[in-house]
Amino acid sequence: MNQSAANNLQDCIQAVTPLDRATTSAIQARLDDLTKPQGSLGRLEELALHLALISQNAGRGPNPKVDPSRIYTCAADHGVAAQGVSKFPSEVTAQMVRNFLHGGAAVNVLTRSAGVELRVVDVGVAHDDFTADVPDSTMLLRRKVKPGTADFSFGPAMSEEECTEAVAAGISLAEQAGEEGVLAVGTGEMGIANTTAATALYCAYLGCSPERVTGPGTGLSAQEVRHKAEVIARALSVNSNALPPAPPLRTLAALGGLEIACLTGLILGCARRKLAIVVDGFISTAAYVAAWKIQPHVADYAFFAHGSAEPGHRIILDQLQARPILDLGMRLGEGTGAALAIPVLRAAAAMLNEMASFSNAGVCSAT
Amino acid sequence: MNQSAANNLQDCIQAVTPLDRATTSAIQARLDDLTKPQGSLGRLEELALHLALISQNAGRGPNPKVDPSRIYTCAADHGVAAQGVSKFPSEVTAQMVRNFLHGGAAVNVLTRSAGVELRVVDVGVAHDDFTADVPDSTMLLRRKVKPGTADFSFGPAMSEEECTEAVAAGISLAEQAGEEGVLAVGTGEMGIANTTAATALYCAYLGCSPERVTGPGTGLSAQEVRHKAEVIARALSVNSNALPPAPPLRTLAALGGLEIACLTGLILGCARRKLAIVVDGFISTAAYVAAWKIQPHVADYAFFAHGSAEPGHRIILDQLQARPILDLGMRLGEGTGAALAIPVLRAAAAMLNEMASFSNAGVCSAT
Repeated sequence: MNQSAANNLQDCIQAVTPLDRATTSAIQARLDDLTKPQGSLGRLEELALHLALISQNAGRGPNPKVDPSRIYTCAADHGVAAQGVSKFPSEVTAQMVRNFLHGGAAVNVLTRSAGVELRVVDVGVAHDDFTADVPDSTMLLRRKVKPGTADFSFGPAMSEEECTEAVAAGISLAEQAGEEGVLAVGTGEMGIANTTAATALYCAYLGCSPERVTGPGTGLSAQEVRHKAEVIARALSVNSNALPPAPPLRTLAALGGLEIACLTGLILGCARRKLAIVVDGFISTAAYVAAWKIQPHVADYAFFAHGSAEPGHRIILDQLQARPILDLGMRLGEGTGAALAIPVLRAAAAMLNEMASFSNAGVCSAT
Repeated sequence: MNQSAANNLQDCIQAVTPLDRATTSAIQARLDDLTKPQGSLGRLEELALHLALISQNAGRGPNPKVDPSRIYTCAADHGVAAQGVSKFPSEVTAQMVRNFLHGGAAVNVLTRSAGVELRVVDVGVAHDDFTADVPDSTMLLRRKVKPGTADFSFGPAMSEEECTEAVAAGISLAEQAGEEGVLAVGTGEMGIANTTAATALYCAYLGCSPERVTGPGTGLSAQEVRHKAEVIARALSVNSNALPPAPPLRTLAALGGLEIACLTGLILGCARRKLAIVVDGFISTAAYVAAWKIQPHVADYAFFAHGSAEPGHRIILDQLQARPILDLGMRLGEGTGAALAIPVLRAAAAMLNEMASFSNAGVCSAT
């Protein structure tokens, strides 16, 4: 086993601290003195308050910023794809990574449009022929732990050591982001069959039933969804020794994916560095739940970008009492929801930092 | 009467044509060939399709753009403010215009954050002392028809001539925007007591009852909301000859506001120029309803930025079968919702224009 990965993980878990909220009322007073009826910017005010708390706790001062912001789209393959749980063959994971590196995927376009940086992380892509003709080498980060997980309907997807390595890779991404001055980090993923892994994790961590939270992913029929739920039920049964009260990392190893484990580490690492974390959709939220089970204080740094059209996402967000910023009926992943939500966070921060107050603008406040 | 304003309005109404939707299936096929599961970008795909139809109908080609985009924040005062229907005194309209011109209001910050241009239009501000120390003269457009409306709880807010002049001013703004290459126009407004005018218009145009759609605006108590609803009921009674089946312009004159009438013209003018119209919140939607009653084809060019926290807005949007892009619990107006929605439209257009297709990216499509 890679002892340094395990140490990194333990160090990180211990270094995540909850937000000190002592300045909440001072920030709220500042928001209330801006030239607008109190509370009239709704969620934007809540987001600004949250960002300001993070900024203050991080020692970055009272004016929060989200730029530079960056999305990490982590890619890996899943052995369970062999069970026919996706409309797409496994080869598409590598093909989409190639597409990312050529700038033609949705997350490329949406990050460009939003002024957000993009990094693509190979944590476990099986068919890595995409490396042949990469036009932008700084975009690709090679962190392959192994070329895809084992089929978890027969046994654990990963060993705990492999899982720890993938988590540690995510932690190191957060370290790097912090070193490079990034202030908001979005999660993204690519991995054929990874809604199956995410759903299995929800069932394990949150006690959901596969029938209730299994959805069509990239476009399964009702019958195919039933088959997928059966595969997940079998995986839960085969890996019963990895279910709670087993440690959350064992659950992640048994039922997760390499990209999900990497995102779990990314979330833990960002929480340690007190960076705003923008959790994308259905799969990213599973990585968040794993991180939250490992270290509950990650909740203090998380923003939920959007409610996915994958039906289980709403159930999970409700259970987490998490309110997504956007609700655009999207179910693509890659980080596309995070790319759309970051401009809203940017606007929230700017509002707090740049708006005039009633007193200095000479505007009468409410009677 | 200003005959040229009336002629401009008639010309504009006649020149608005519905969208030819013959290319819908071709655009849909293009969307479906992009490297993502079909339909997985949800609303973003619908918005892209709508933008592409507008672009094609305008002769601007198959690749829609929203930039440059611009918000017109139209300001005016309301005689009905004397009835105590707002938490803020009328003077705040002018004070906020001054705030706009100094760059310190919410709409300034949010348009800057979003890369959207801003113009502030004085259509009828009563206290125009804000002109003394204006730092950015290109931001202010002087189109004052008169210094505020009459109190419509005693009679019409405006004469039909004045209303026509304000509508014509809005049409000319759209013309100017079109000449200057603007491709998406957001609506914004500032006018103390204008939720009262907007609510009265909804009651008149859509047959809503004042009790049902009157809300707290900038922050009235429940008792104050009841008073506001009574004022609106009285206005509807006093102006009964302006209710349908009276012509919609007469209704607008009796119960609207100068900024609402200007926005009505802006919407009509943008529809004529086939520009994407981004309707902001509760008051802007009332201007939209007026424009739609005058010329139903404006619906083909309209996007609804957000669902306002002003409770009546959801009722009205449902009645219009309009789905807002965002739902952030905002109720400020000024164009703040439009400023947040334009980046989503920009992302939708970029997605259609820039994403790789399955064939050219070498990605397998679904089985």
